[in-house]
Amino acid sequence: MAVYTEVPDDELAEFVAGYDIGAVLSAKGIAEGVENSNFLLHTESGFFILTLYEKRTRESDLPFFVGLMEHLAAKGLVCPQPVKRRTGEALGRLAGRPAAIVTFLDGMGVKRPGVPHCGAVGEALARLHLAGADFPMRRENALSVRGWRPLFDAAQERADSVTPGLRAATESALDALEREWPSGLPGGVIHADLFPDNVFFIGSKLSGLIDFYFACTDAFAYDLAICLNAWCFEMDGSFNLTKGQAMIAGYRRVRELEPAEVHALPVLCRGAALRFMLTRLVDWLNVPPGALVKPKDPLEYYKKLRFHQRAESAADYGLVGVPA
Amino acid sequence: MAVYTEVPDDELAEFVAGYDIGAVLSAKGIAEGVENSNFLLHTESGFFILTLYEKRTRESDLPFFVGLMEHLAAKGLVCPQPVKRRTGEALGRLAGRPAAIVTFLDGMGVKRPGVPHCGAVGEALARLHLAGADFPMRRENALSVRGWRPLFDAAQERADSVTPGLRAATESALDALEREWPSGLPGGVIHADLFPDNVFFIGSKLSGLIDFYFACTDAFAYDLAICLNAWCFEMDGSFNLTKGQAMIAGYRRVRELEPAEVHALPVLCRGAALRFMLTRLVDWLNVPPGALVKPKDPLEYYKKLRFHQRAESAADYGLVGVPA
Repeated sequence: MAVYTEVPDDELAEFVAGYDIGAVLSAKGIAEGVENSNFLLHTESGFFILTLYEKRTRESDLPFFVGLMEHLAAKGLVCPQPVKRRTGEALGRLAGRPAAIVTFLDGMGVKRPGVPHCGAVGEALARLHLAGADFPMRRENALSVRGWRPLFDAAQERADSVTPGLRAATESALDALEREWPSGLPGGVIHADLFPDNVFFIGSKLSGLIDFYFACTDAFAYDLAICLNAWCFEMDGSFNLTKGQAMIAGYRRVRELEPAEVHALPVLCRGAALRFMLTRLVDWLNVPPGALVKPKDPLEYYKKLRFHQRAESAADYGLVGVPA
Repeated sequence: MAVYTEVPDDELAEFVAGYDIGAVLSAKGIAEGVENSNFLLHTESGFFILTLYEKRTRESDLPFFVGLMEHLAAKGLVCPQPVKRRTGEALGRLAGRPAAIVTFLDGMGVKRPGVPHCGAVGEALARLHLAGADFPMRRENALSVRGWRPLFDAAQERADSVTPGLRAATESALDALEREWPSGLPGGVIHADLFPDNVFFIGSKLSGLIDFYFACTDAFAYDLAICLNAWCFEMDGSFNLTKGQAMIAGYRRVRELEPAEVHALPVLCRGAALRFMLTRLVDWLNVPPGALVKPKDPLEYYKKLRFHQRAESAADYGLVGVPA
């Protein structure tokens, strides 16, 4: 839940007057996204989402994110489409922050994804990878292997306060990943944060993808590894192989995995688990006492990491019919 | 800002299927109201507000609130209109809570009300009083004079920690109000919480009233006193007489004040200031340390109370042309 910025009425009216979407009829802060302020905007021409980019989103990255959404929407992928200002720009400023208006997308995140959802997500992820293939901009993945050591350094002193042994286990996993991290895999634009919150469904049908604010240029199979982590584990920490099969098969219906990607899947899954464990751990250790917003539990990803450490091949994730 | 309850997808779909509004396309938690959970709901037949009533709203009061909105909407007052279930009921249950769907209302609360807004609010308030006149249900105002002593008792021990002398000043104001509180004034349904958050405007035009969850049966002029407190003071605590004039004149264009109401206006204004000071004080003293939600400042209403203690007649609030 996130609405950080109050927008004065007159500034909002003036901002919206810079677009060809009629006058503002309503603007309601919505509980969507965790980094930025989002408003559901009703104007004389329809419903939109207004996003104010808060300080955790680097302003220099915005042209990549906004350009990517335009590119993907133009390719037919259902995602929020930036609305251009009369000047032709998609980015403006409101209440002292960079701001954009994007189209309103129907659908809702599923809270308890089932097997069919996982299959649909696999397919959509592959479509995203293909649609982004000719996107001309690049953005390095700041939260890939080279970004993990600084996170570990920030958290290691107090890691064992979360659970005994966490510091040593994390360091050893990190050491191994730094040695074994693959390079040269097929890549391009990845979403990098395609959690259930960010995939909309209407009934059982996938209706769109949102929140491209971690998107970057990296290996496609790493994005699949993130999704396997985010969608295919049960609440008790067990991996649901049927969901993994559905997701990987869904992906391969649209884009076939190359042998090097198949081979790398276990190490990529370990990396993805470590990445989310580390960012959650840093947030967990830095939450103000008594805060009402409960940070996400880093131990969820510690459990997932241990599952991945026992995985031997992509078959353990549900890949069938391809020798690793 | 308030979204307290997560609603499982399947429960939401089932709940909405009880209405004749098509299937759910989207539901977003919105930052509106402070007591209940509100969602902006998009279905195949349009946009609605879904409210889940949390525990601070007494379930036995809901038929009054929902019935009142129906009554007022039927009289042509623009306010959220409860949508009836196929069973004919306006109240249902969702996620273990009483829940209702009401029509979506365009417009936004003004953050910096000007003189014309105050005039429009005065008019709308009088229209509300007239439209509610034949509403058959009654609800006692639990936050009128008899409710203040228990609030004071809950806060008095620590009142001076907020500002020195607050305890004695509050007790003396309360003693006086208990002695002088008028009875027998013209009354009926009052909104009792018509703050700028709860009055929607589109541009400079008043477009509707929301949040009837403090509505009750009480003196009309007390409702006007609440609005004078809520709308006509400046940020520095000074009373803006021009705003007061506009509000009272707006009210009188629709419903004339009787001499007894004119005479009682200063004591009603003192009572309204004390009521909001006391509820804010109790919240202020009971906020958990480190909480992210900052309670509203009780001293704002302490300042207003002191202004009212110096007021001699309704003329001090901007009433013109009527001898008190």
